[in-house]
Amino acid sequence: MIIDAHSHVTLPIQEHIKAMDEAGIDKTFLFSTTFHPETSANFAEVKTSMEYLNDLLAGKIGSVVEARQKAVSELVEAIEQYPDRYIGFGTVPVGLNLNDTLQYVNDVIYKNHLAGMGEFPLGSGQTHLLKNVFIASQEFHNLPIWVHAFFPLTFQDIKDIAEFAKTYPQIPVILGHLGGINWLETIELVKEIPNLYLDTSAYYSTFVLGTIINEVPEKCLFGVDRPFGDLQLSKNTILRYAKTPEVSNAVLGENAIRLLNITG
Amino acid sequence: MIIDAHSHVTLPIQEHIKAMDEAGIDKTFLFSTTFHPETSANFAEVKTSMEYLNDLLAGKIGSVVEARQKAVSELVEAIEQYPDRYIGFGTVPVGLNLNDTLQYVNDVIYKNHLAGMGEFPLGSGQTHLLKNVFIASQEFHNLPIWVHAFFPLTFQDIKDIAEFAKTYPQIPVILGHLGGINWLETIELVKEIPNLYLDTSAYYSTFVLGTIINEVPEKCLFGVDRPFGDLQLSKNTILRYAKTPEVSNAVLGENAIRLLNITG
Repeated sequence: MIIDAHSHVTLPIQEHIKAMDEAGIDKTFLFSTTFHPETSANFAEVKTSMEYLNDLLAGKIGSVVEARQKAVSELVEAIEQYPDRYIGFGTVPVGLNLNDTLQYVNDVIYKNHLAGMGEFPLGSGQTHLLKNVFIASQEFHNLPIWVHAFFPLTFQDIKDIAEFAKTYPQIPVILGHLGGINWLETIELVKEIPNLYLDTSAYYSTFVLGTIINEVPEKCLFGVDRPFGDLQLSKNTILRYAKTPEVSNAVLGENAIRLLNITG
Repeated sequence: MIIDAHSHVTLPIQEHIKAMDEAGIDKTFLFSTTFHPETSANFAEVKTSMEYLNDLLAGKIGSVVEARQKAVSELVEAIEQYPDRYIGFGTVPVGLNLNDTLQYVNDVIYKNHLAGMGEFPLGSGQTHLLKNVFIASQEFHNLPIWVHAFFPLTFQDIKDIAEFAKTYPQIPVILGHLGGINWLETIELVKEIPNLYLDTSAYYSTFVLGTIINEVPEKCLFGVDRPFGDLQLSKNTILRYAKTPEVSNAVLGENAIRLLNITG
């Protein structure tokens, strides 16, 4: 079974399912989104979308509760349409107090049967805001936590997230985008901490990607990050750079299956 | 004609030519290199190579004249073996005084019939070191200048490079790697400045790459950045995301041909 363990809701949903069929991807871990660059009609619209994303990644608009609830509604609707193709990860606002975080996770994640929490786009120096999210994960059967770990995060931020993973060894923690430019140091953390994983999306070098998946094949989850990545090209890259079928099988599906105890 | 306008010398040379043949790439703008990660036998060796690269990109070891001269010798030897497949770009140390820079460019670039200068890996805040390189370019018939513009460069650094391009409108200036995370602002500079170009290598999102090549097709040069990128996958990506054959033809070859007046 081939699993894209990280893509966002893209519109129309049917186009995504068609692209999964064409690329031979069985299931997607589907993440909510508060914006839809894939629907841009021209460069000006792309620009507006990307400026929104930059603000989001700078941690400027990460806590807008209403936008996130709307995004989760859109996610839940997509999963209801294709329950055998999608497994949901829902975003949770950071910066809420513990009671509000627990209430939010109960109402939005747990009641909607979502399998994990994320993507968390934090500004550099904001990783402490994940504390209540980790406590909430523990309360709700150790929901996996997925953190954007490309720019603007520094290696210090990534180390801080790794410390959370050490403190909560039952909670799977996925570092998005291989740790970005900090991949070389990040790989050592992933080797050391059993519940710390890497997502392969947004690789900027196939040499780097190949080095990582062959060094820690059991810790890498294939991710596309649609609409930013391409299903077919991303899958082809893993197949081309995995040194053995064991490596590509682990990365393209087996690790994700084990992470969420997927049975079919 | 399909041209990879940015790859480094990789060993053995014959393997590169074979990969070019398999991917249908006619010519490569070949850049010198002071290290060879592609020859790493294991992860420890890759790590040593990448730590060297990180120091290089941090501007810590950019001026090592001897290492660069050796790299240019290796480059010249490769071109002599495959003169119809390779066109050379040679590195020049920054931080030399003007006389020494002129002498170096004369001895190493001009006398070896290299077509351009680069890749320049500058630390953030170091772009002023390019001044003598621009003066030398002008002295030697406006040799194109190719600058690494991914991490660690900030948008301020990229703006500084763009100012050089404005000051020297006859010198083609290529910003490597699409300007990295600063691509959205960089694209506006490229629209404004006729002699400022983008190299497509190290894209981390096919959505971003597609947006750029379709918005400024005449300003983009297809680059692979071997050993870090993959010839076939990089070419497939351009073909998949170009909205028209005019766009893919321009990016995959025509722009590079025009830039260097290649005749066959």
